Amino acid sequence: MYKLYDFLPSGNGYKVRLLLTQLGIPFELILLDILKGETRTPEFLAKNPNGRIPLLELSPGEFLSESNAILIYLSQGTEFLPLSPLEHARVMQWLFFEQYSHEPFIATSRFWLQHDMAETKKQALEEKQAPGYAALGVMEQRLKDHPFLVNDRYTIADIALYAYTHVAHEGNFDLSGFSGILQWIDRVKSQPNHILITDEAIGQDS
Amino acid sequence: MYKLYDFLPSGNGYKVRLLLTQLGIPFELILLDILKGETRTPEFLAKNPNGRIPLLELSPGEFLSESNAILIYLSQGTEFLPLSPLEHARVMQWLFFEQYSHEPFIATSRFWLQHDMAETKKQALEEKQAPGYAALGVMEQRLKDHPFLVNDRYTIADIALYAYTHVAHEGNFDLSGFSGILQWIDRVKSQPNHILITDEAIGQDS
Repeated sequence: MYKLYDFLPSGNGYKVRLLLTQLGIPFELILLDILKGETRTPEFLAKNPNGRIPLLELSPGEFLSESNAILIYLSQGTEFLPLSPLEHARVMQWLFFEQYSHEPFIATSRFWLQHDMAETKKQALEEKQAPGYAALGVMEQRLKDHPFLVNDRYTIADIALYAYTHVAHEGNFDLSGFSGILQWIDRVKSQPNHILITDEAIGQDS
Repeated sequence: MYKLYDFLPSGNGYKVRLLLTQLGIPFELILLDILKGETRTPEFLAKNPNGRIPLLELSPGEFLSESNAILIYLSQGTEFLPLSPLEHARVMQWLFFEQYSHEPFIATSRFWLQHDMAETKKQALEEKQAPGYAALGVMEQRLKDHPFLVNDRYTIADIALYAYTHVAHEGNFDLSGFSGILQWIDRVKSQPNHILITDEAIGQDS
């Protein structure tokens, strides 16, 4: 059985928990507290030299890191990852967009606000507003007239972007002007076997 | 023929130019000056709402953005992207590592230094040193006893990480303590049909 090393408030971890659950794949959840340095111990660095969760132990001693790489690995051959070269490429495009243009602004702001760093990070928080809203604007341009990010189907691109977008308000981003995104959030929530970011839910047969 | 919208000093653009050249795929290069806002014009934003190069026009009006998504698209079915699920996953892991843990520190430092922003960005440059060296440390841990990042073969993972690592000194990162990385740089340079970051080289049959 897969072992998932995770930190529950993490959207990056949530992506993997959500996909595993929607695929009906059972897994063992091993919770680490990143605030207490539990991902920077020698034991954990031996598993992932980059010292981050989520980390999926595929088989004893075989570890895969990077949330979006884990999504790709798990979704190969499933309906969550389109096979056609162009659709596949569009999924990849959104996954890299998420890690480069979205997560560092929206997720990081949420992390600081959740963990009482608003005062010490005041200026940095302000600087993340413009690029964060720019990322939401790119999503809105797609979602204002499409049901999902790639084609008309729910894929791992939606899972990856949903993770931090649906809690963007926790990072002081106001989604009220993004009607396409808001409707898409409802659409993602209504997918079979959806779980909440706070759920530890172990995958069940769907 | 593919059209590549690019900015020559960009390592992200270089990745795509290098792979296209090594695959022997001819392409038309369209150079834009990001310093003059040429990727933020209405015309360019209609092609890529995220306003970034590289951008590959696959066929008239069909655009693919995100350098690493382009690498994946172009390398499908070639020797540059392993097929086995685990090796494929490892390539993806390095590609996301590059965009999240490496590029924002090493490439951004280089960009600022290249474009005379060292004074205005002094503190930010300092803050990028530790995470940049951490990323190099993760690479070194792999490369100190392996010839390439995934398996014993040159893949798009090497192309993606090479792009900004081999010019890390231009971002004030000193590679002299990273002997594994330095040997790997030589190994990458010696691959067939290698081009330099400053080359406009149009792909030729290999």
